[in-house]
Amino acid sequence: MPAISLKGQKMPESPIRKLVPYAEDAKKRGHHVYHLNIGQPDIKTPQVALDAIKNNTIEVLAYSRSEGSEEYRTKIAGYYHKNDIEVNAEQIIVTTGGSEALLFAMGSITDPGDEVIIPEPFYANYNGFATASGVKVVPVVSKIEDNFALPPIEEFEKLITTKTKAILICNPGNPTGYLYSKEEIKKLAAIVKEHDLFLIADEVYREFAYDGLTHYSVMQEAGLEDHAIMIDSVSKRYSMCGARIGCIVSKNKNVISTALKFAQARLSPPTYAQVASEAALDTPQRYFDDVIEEYVERRNTLVAALKEIPGVRVAKPKGAFYCIAELPVTNADDFAQWLLEKFDHNGETVMVAPAAGFYSTPGIGLNQVRIAYVLNEEDLIKSVAILKAALETYNA
Amino acid sequence: MPAISLKGQKMPESPIRKLVPYAEDAKKRGHHVYHLNIGQPDIKTPQVALDAIKNNTIEVLAYSRSEGSEEYRTKIAGYYHKNDIEVNAEQIIVTTGGSEALLFAMGSITDPGDEVIIPEPFYANYNGFATASGVKVVPVVSKIEDNFALPPIEEFEKLITTKTKAILICNPGNPTGYLYSKEEIKKLAAIVKEHDLFLIADEVYREFAYDGLTHYSVMQEAGLEDHAIMIDSVSKRYSMCGARIGCIVSKNKNVISTALKFAQARLSPPTYAQVASEAALDTPQRYFDDVIEEYVERRNTLVAALKEIPGVRVAKPKGAFYCIAELPVTNADDFAQWLLEKFDHNGETVMVAPAAGFYSTPGIGLNQVRIAYVLNEEDLIKSVAILKAALETYNA
Repeated sequence: MPAISLKGQKMPESPIRKLVPYAEDAKKRGHHVYHLNIGQPDIKTPQVALDAIKNNTIEVLAYSRSEGSEEYRTKIAGYYHKNDIEVNAEQIIVTTGGSEALLFAMGSITDPGDEVIIPEPFYANYNGFATASGVKVVPVVSKIEDNFALPPIEEFEKLITTKTKAILICNPGNPTGYLYSKEEIKKLAAIVKEHDLFLIADEVYREFAYDGLTHYSVMQEAGLEDHAIMIDSVSKRYSMCGARIGCIVSKNKNVISTALKFAQARLSPPTYAQVASEAALDTPQRYFDDVIEEYVERRNTLVAALKEIPGVRVAKPKGAFYCIAELPVTNADDFAQWLLEKFDHNGETVMVAPAAGFYSTPGIGLNQVRIAYVLNEEDLIKSVAILKAALETYNA
Repeated sequence: MPAISLKGQKMPESPIRKLVPYAEDAKKRGHHVYHLNIGQPDIKTPQVALDAIKNNTIEVLAYSRSEGSEEYRTKIAGYYHKNDIEVNAEQIIVTTGGSEALLFAMGSITDPGDEVIIPEPFYANYNGFATASGVKVVPVVSKIEDNFALPPIEEFEKLITTKTKAILICNPGNPTGYLYSKEEIKKLAAIVKEHDLFLIADEVYREFAYDGLTHYSVMQEAGLEDHAIMIDSVSKRYSMCGARIGCIVSKNKNVISTALKFAQARLSPPTYAQVASEAALDTPQRYFDDVIEEYVERRNTLVAALKEIPGVRVAKPKGAFYCIAELPVTNADDFAQWLLEKFDHNGETVMVAPAAGFYSTPGIGLNQVRIAYVLNEEDLIKSVAILKAALETYNA
């Protein structure tokens, strides 16, 4: 039998999805499973986007331009302008989700063997994109006791080698919920300029900034034009994860012209989803106000309830819709599987994402889980109660 | 300024799309441009698919499963059964177009520096996917005088090294229109088995087999189960290029489990497009009968008209909707640009794809163009008349 590639063998299994078969078995046994494992919001997609699809008049479902339709890109630039980010359509390439934007970014700036520094815990699929690109992830540990703030800039400095091509951040962070301050972005800007690196910022949770805090984009930082690459997506903003529409944005012309070659090879991003995404840009502000209010309430409910469980420590998220919780277990991976395989509380159980998969350093985060607060408050309260009962049984 | 990757620098520009700015300028000058350059059919998408989208009841546009929805994959297996290909849902991963299926195939079976043998001329984006994967394309020349039939198997044999991982074919061929016979597939099967290689077959034009010929899939060849990887797509079959739905199919479990890891990293294929693609599987047979009849007529019209032009040689396609024509010019690239930049015939001109970009060997195919017969017969006749007039002027 011909051999699988080394790259293929190294590709990590998704920590978010690897427990799915156990969840399906639990459902087959008649148990209800609360899904706290994946960032799939229960929020309704804006009506303008749904209507645009229902009322579309496409008769030949044709390719769009590789870089995305002109109208959509122009309209995205308008959206950024409202968010104090000044870019034009030529600085935007529409991608098949933020995922493809990350692949294009890695392909455009790294060769096999190159290194990208990422504060950990980080979005687990960065590992997959790095492996697919032959790139080595170099982690900098951020800590639950610091609320996952930016590690001291000296820690980054120590890790920079001739192979380092970029620092990659997620802001606000998945899985940490941490929102970087303007000062933290400025520190990162200084170091990438000094060492002639790129700063890739995954800003797909831009709108999800809480407690009166304002998101500061790498695209707003003067002097960073040639270094900054922004990754974006409609998935979370409009609860349109299934659209698979994102974009890569940079004022560095070489980055955009190179990413465009990757975009041309795959022909075009999905057409229906571009129609929906363009319409979604007309979503009224009150949709976001309601959504943010809902998430803040969910976060407050979740964090308060988790803190009531003996032995649980939780970092308070300032953005996105995730939090990392430290549990009184030695192996959260085993616990998460046990929850689905062996446990139920009145016929119900919960699915969480073991956090070790969000770390690159082996042995860290083994007692942590990521909880996505994408369910309504009532379900969150029930979920935490189940978690509490489960921990008692598991540790007994 | 930080540097672009070597990989990014090497990424080829799409030969199909690089003339687009010249076409846009021609249109701005008020000229009508007949697009023979890209495989974007003018055929209407099946009504069942369009209706499924208009009548969809999605309220939260959520991720699908990474491997595609269970219902859709099961239904695809049924479609293959009707085409005498016996596979089940577990052997299918739904991808974002055939493009992503090719990327997953390359990622799963090759590492940087590995080699894939491809008969040339070949679909130009194979170059892009190979470069993105760090893979070296090793071409075997097929010839216009042989109608682009499979080159002698000894030519493949000569090129196999320890780095060779696969032979990749497109059947029926883009850009050649050549349909491989069962005997040719059996020859390829024997050589991949002997050398323990994969045989990747891009079969997205399966339905487009003319003159009573039957398509023979690599999935039908007994004994090839561990070697065969099929690439497929709804783009051409249902004139749904903009859906961006394809799939990778293999009975080799390692290939599928590895490709699934790549699929999980990018979360899921587009949801709306899966709804449309699933519905498209109910397209009545008469849709295909009409489409095939239309393409056969177009092909006959095109080939006959091209042969009337002095100095033009054309291979008669047996499938797909492309043909390669040799023109009485030394540099078809220059001629194609000139057609858009400097020429018009009563305010009209044509856009063709210079064929050199479909060859990997430098210096071959310089006097050839690829013509996609995706326009109605009347427009094809006009296009060839323009081409004839243009060649007279260009060569004067």
